[in-house]
Amino acid sequence: MKHLHVDVKQDLLRANDLLARSLRETWVRQETFVVNLLSSPGSGKTSLLEGTVESLRSSYRVLVLEGDLETDRDAERIRARGVEAVQITTGGTCHLEAHMIAQVWEQIKEKTYDFVFIENVGNLVCPASFDLGEHLRVVLLSVPEGDDKPAKYPKAFRTAQWMVLTKMDLLPHFDFDPDRAEAEARKLRPDIRVFHTSSRTGEGLDGWVRALILAREKTFSRS
Amino acid sequence: MKHLHVDVKQDLLRANDLLARSLRETWVRQETFVVNLLSSPGSGKTSLLEGTVESLRSSYRVLVLEGDLETDRDAERIRARGVEAVQITTGGTCHLEAHMIAQVWEQIKEKTYDFVFIENVGNLVCPASFDLGEHLRVVLLSVPEGDDKPAKYPKAFRTAQWMVLTKMDLLPHFDFDPDRAEAEARKLRPDIRVFHTSSRTGEGLDGWVRALILAREKTFSRS
Repeated sequence: MKHLHVDVKQDLLRANDLLARSLRETWVRQETFVVNLLSSPGSGKTSLLEGTVESLRSSYRVLVLEGDLETDRDAERIRARGVEAVQITTGGTCHLEAHMIAQVWEQIKEKTYDFVFIENVGNLVCPASFDLGEHLRVVLLSVPEGDDKPAKYPKAFRTAQWMVLTKMDLLPHFDFDPDRAEAEARKLRPDIRVFHTSSRTGEGLDGWVRALILAREKTFSRS
Repeated sequence: MKHLHVDVKQDLLRANDLLARSLRETWVRQETFVVNLLSSPGSGKTSLLEGTVESLRSSYRVLVLEGDLETDRDAERIRARGVEAVQITTGGTCHLEAHMIAQVWEQIKEKTYDFVFIENVGNLVCPASFDLGEHLRVVLLSVPEGDDKPAKYPKAFRTAQWMVLTKMDLLPHFDFDPDRAEAEARKLRPDIRVFHTSSRTGEGLDGWVRALILAREKTFSRS
């Protein structure tokens, strides 16, 4: 025996998707641009967000939602940059769901924001199945993880409009080919947009932040 | 609002645990020592196994079960070392379950092995909840992921008897403190045994393989 394929009946996740749609409608009315960040544990989501909110906070109202199984550490890191953060601890749940975001929104609905960043639970599998009402889904892939990860975790890369390659300063120490990672991701999503960044050196952060601002403007521009 | 805690009713996973127990009984009868490896994507599970089976194959009958969402690549890497490997692709499922292992065992029951290594789906969350009937659970944590991961993904570290710190050759390039990682893991599981390895330099591999052989002997020794 060489291979066992387990067929899993996909739950249609209808309730989640309906709630996500309603959240998205609210955010469109408020011109709140919402970004959902997905990756493995330790790919650098929080570090990327630290740099991002630092750049945006003088001109935009920014909120960060931090999803973790346990601990408040990530929200503390964002607050240390002078930006509001809500920690969502999921207990054992391996991903964020739209109802968790909706519960937060019930509490803060009187306030509006220009950007909301949702840092999902560190997990390259489960979060890919749950729409949170975001306008933009971004998957991070760090150089130490290896350039074979898009093929092995396809849903995360198929459902993300953007891919950020992180920890690019470590390229000399790894057998990681950014072109191969990009080619593998494009097999799953031909139009995926790719960024190269390093939170340590600052490489690529300006371009990433500019792209976020333009994506927000494009989303809310009246034709 | 600073914090939302989502209470999730834990499924008791009774069916899985019953099946796992039955698998374990079979393996005890056959003196098959079964190791379940858990980690994030890209922590180096397959690389560690490549070195491990290379050391064991001359003296022991070894089988590797490779769990992945998609692709046969990991099983191919093991077979290239001259060791049998079965690829289990889970479709979208974020972890292996005992029934998947049992299905494989139905096919290969006429054969017996001294060591079976199960490489779980790359995910530091979901696999921690599923007993596969293993004698030993091992969690890997790679230096690039950061030493804060035990606190953030507690169940994986609480349920593993052993922790392997991998990619230790990269320590000079990261702000990773192995003592801190170990202290965090010991808060969750005081008796956790810790190994320091590098699949690139070979550091620590001999000690790890020796410990596996001793653990197998101890498990099956008649008193």
